[in-house]
Amino acid sequence: MYIPTLDDMTAARKRIAPYIHRTPVLTSSYLNDLTGAELFFKCENFQKAGAFKVRGACNAVFGLPENKLERGVATHSSGNHALSLSYAAGRRGIPCHVVMPRTAPQAKKDAVRGYGGIITECEPSTSSREEVFAKVEAETGADFVHPYNDSRVIAGQGTCSAELIEQVEGLDAVIAPIGGGGMISGTCLTLSSLAPEVKIYAAEPEQADDAARSFRAGHIIADDAPETVADGLKVPLKELTWHFVSNHVTDILTASEQEIIDAMKMIWKRMKIVMEPSSAVPLATILKNKQVFAGKRVGLIITGGNVDLDALPWMTGEKR
Amino acid sequence: MYIPTLDDMTAARKRIAPYIHRTPVLTSSYLNDLTGAELFFKCENFQKAGAFKVRGACNAVFGLPENKLERGVATHSSGNHALSLSYAAGRRGIPCHVVMPRTAPQAKKDAVRGYGGIITECEPSTSSREEVFAKVEAETGADFVHPYNDSRVIAGQGTCSAELIEQVEGLDAVIAPIGGGGMISGTCLTLSSLAPEVKIYAAEPEQADDAARSFRAGHIIADDAPETVADGLKVPLKELTWHFVSNHVTDILTASEQEIIDAMKMIWKRMKIVMEPSSAVPLATILKNKQVFAGKRVGLIITGGNVDLDALPWMTGEKR
Repeated sequence: MYIPTLDDMTAARKRIAPYIHRTPVLTSSYLNDLTGAELFFKCENFQKAGAFKVRGACNAVFGLPENKLERGVATHSSGNHALSLSYAAGRRGIPCHVVMPRTAPQAKKDAVRGYGGIITECEPSTSSREEVFAKVEAETGADFVHPYNDSRVIAGQGTCSAELIEQVEGLDAVIAPIGGGGMISGTCLTLSSLAPEVKIYAAEPEQADDAARSFRAGHIIADDAPETVADGLKVPLKELTWHFVSNHVTDILTASEQEIIDAMKMIWKRMKIVMEPSSAVPLATILKNKQVFAGKRVGLIITGGNVDLDALPWMTGEKR
Repeated sequence: MYIPTLDDMTAARKRIAPYIHRTPVLTSSYLNDLTGAELFFKCENFQKAGAFKVRGACNAVFGLPENKLERGVATHSSGNHALSLSYAAGRRGIPCHVVMPRTAPQAKKDAVRGYGGIITECEPSTSSREEVFAKVEAETGADFVHPYNDSRVIAGQGTCSAELIEQVEGLDAVIAPIGGGGMISGTCLTLSSLAPEVKIYAAEPEQADDAARSFRAGHIIADDAPETVADGLKVPLKELTWHFVSNHVTDILTASEQEIIDAMKMIWKRMKIVMEPSSAVPLATILKNKQVFAGKRVGLIITGGNVDLDALPWMTGEKR
């Protein structure tokens, strides 16, 4: 297991600069008044392909050696990593193979194909996904880019907080959602070296709180198939991300489904930005832990904006 | 009839600066590719009170002489002007009376009250609004700040394009939605002096196309109670705004209800911003008049972001 370093992050930053946005940081006087903290929203919903994941994907793709280009890259994902890897591969002109459950929403399949991704469908189970992926990998010889348990990906995600601390001075804390832990690991990688005084919090749905339970237990706990509106946060920690989480995170806070939906709607209404349910978890946890953040300058990572506008969670909330 | 001048706009800019945002300009490579033009979106949806109208409202309120402060201000408005005038009056600590159609979105009524505005309801027609307003004005003695046919308001709205031409060099055209014509008039006021080479286009819903018909006929045509999803654009031109429209506008383009809704959803999906149906009319008209804008650098005014998140037009579209 190779643990990425600050040098890897710095190299990533240079490598991916031509293909990504330096995303803006927004503020809201309303949300500052409401929380008693000074909040700085790092808007990766405005990122290329609509999410921070394009940072890690671009770092993996543009760091590939010449002799691997022809065979391209492969991954399994039904979400932002699939989109981002397809985008990155398209920019480099190499093939990108994506294993995706046949039950994934048509809109997501269309978006991956829109960026040039080649989809192979599997059944919606872990065993089928692994079996189909192994076959695709063997047949194509493509380079496997894991959505988060990959040092290239983590180094890429670390570029986000490197920008944030340049954009906002004197941060006391940064909080980001946690699923598999890619963004949080990148944040730990960067801040533990460049700004070790900044506390790092992770925010997780109560209904998929395997990272919070792992954190308290001192070892990885993985749930089989948690259900949450924050659909980017269902996956478990793996060894690389556990390394960063267990060494550098101050705490992992959780919020209920309704708290996540309320925070999401509040951000849409007050800040006029479109973002995913996963991205609302940090604000939801701040609102229920005001004493932790009061008087502090807090960076929040708005991780992505790829949401189905025809099925917003407050529209379907009654059915939950 | 006093026609505001560039000096009035310059004074307005100084007067309102402490109370408004200098809003950002966003771009979208997807929408550039789709239209064949270079589009620059001036994001007044991120403005204080959620719309450009706060510019004119602040100019009127903060320009009021001392002896008029106690009686405050009054207006009639289908939404954003009411919000904006309430916000401005609140900042100056004076009363704000608002006559509003009883059918206006609940979200807008709540927001007006949230800023301290005092609402009197009328029927959803121009005639009823004028009748109820005359009564409120007589009873309160408040200073009438018309939503657009007011030289202070037009001078305030003109500050938006003054910012835009500082933010984007070499614009060939600016396009904004047209209802009563306040934003377009302010745009004409500023650009005809500071950037006379920039063509000014107005964009209007087909179902409320009184400005386009007025433009072709050479005199004001006013409809009583047109119906459109772009609910900020139902009101007719008045003498002051007609002055600017008839003298400085290159053309008024129209779009259907479905085209407006499609353009709105496209902006939400691709640019990840929350904006109103009215603000989507410019993109809708560009998409159906690509030959007019191809190869040009075009500024689009995203006029506001105050939309009812529980009743988005693509959700209720089947019922239209």
